[in-house]
Amino acid sequence: MLTRIDHIGIACHDLDATVAFYRETYGFTDVHIEVNEEQGVREAMLKINETGDGAASYLQLLEPTREDSTVAKWLAKNGEGVHHIAFGTDGDVQDEADGIAAKGVRVLYDSPRRGSMGSRITFLHPKDAHGVLTELVQKA
Amino acid sequence: MLTRIDHIGIACHDLDATVAFYRETYGFTDVHIEVNEEQGVREAMLKINETGDGAASYLQLLEPTREDSTVAKWLAKNGEGVHHIAFGTDGDVQDEADGIAAKGVRVLYDSPRRGSMGSRITFLHPKDAHGVLTELVQKA
Repeated sequence: MLTRIDHIGIACHDLDATVAFYRETYGFTDVHIEVNEEQGVREAMLKINETGDGAASYLQLLEPTREDSTVAKWLAKNGEGVHHIAFGTDGDVQDEADGIAAKGVRVLYDSPRRGSMGSRITFLHPKDAHGVLTELVQKA
Repeated sequence: MLTRIDHIGIACHDLDATVAFYRETYGFTDVHIEVNEEQGVREAMLKINETGDGAASYLQLLEPTREDSTVAKWLAKNGEGVHHIAFGTDGDVQDEADGIAAKGVRVLYDSPRRGSMGSRITFLHPKDAHGVLTELVQKA
């Protein structure tokens, strides 16, 4: 079952400058930064609020680390902005994805990959989801 | 102070079909529908989770009701997808906006307008916010 908005993924050119913008403009000071080599991004998770399922909602700021990453290509086409949204599941993310696939939505990964802060993630095809690139997250 | 992700605003061509997609695909069944004539949208608020500040996070699905609405123009240019994000404040939304304006971010409304479910809202210019059209919400 999907029990929360886990995060909003936002693509940016300069992670440090964008983190500073969100911290100084809005006061979002709870920041975790990591590199995901597989995804080709350096990313910041800004915790915004606790959620009723015992987890939290974040902004995820994404800066590409190489030009062939999907986020780099997306930025070149669209400029900075919202790249994807993510829902958190209280179960196994592959089971969740299988249930959604059975309803006719294409799942982009054959098996879950590593997401932010040790999570397991997969993505759904935006063309099957009214134009929204949608991620499913099972937190660590 | 901004204390939650209030909602993610998603533009769509057919509100009823998109609500049905989110309900049937993800199980989001808590739906409030209203028309905002001033904004030129028919909208659905899908409650996703409670938040730690005593409020909740929603998906806001937006269908234009007239061709000259900002959402209609946005859809014609971009197609369906994420239109804006919104943070909830625990204070007065105009005070929040004034504090953000003082940091150099343009606020789009001279005074707050009516948002979903009786809220008071304003918007920040996306060019001042790393490409993200950002709404501030004071709930009813």
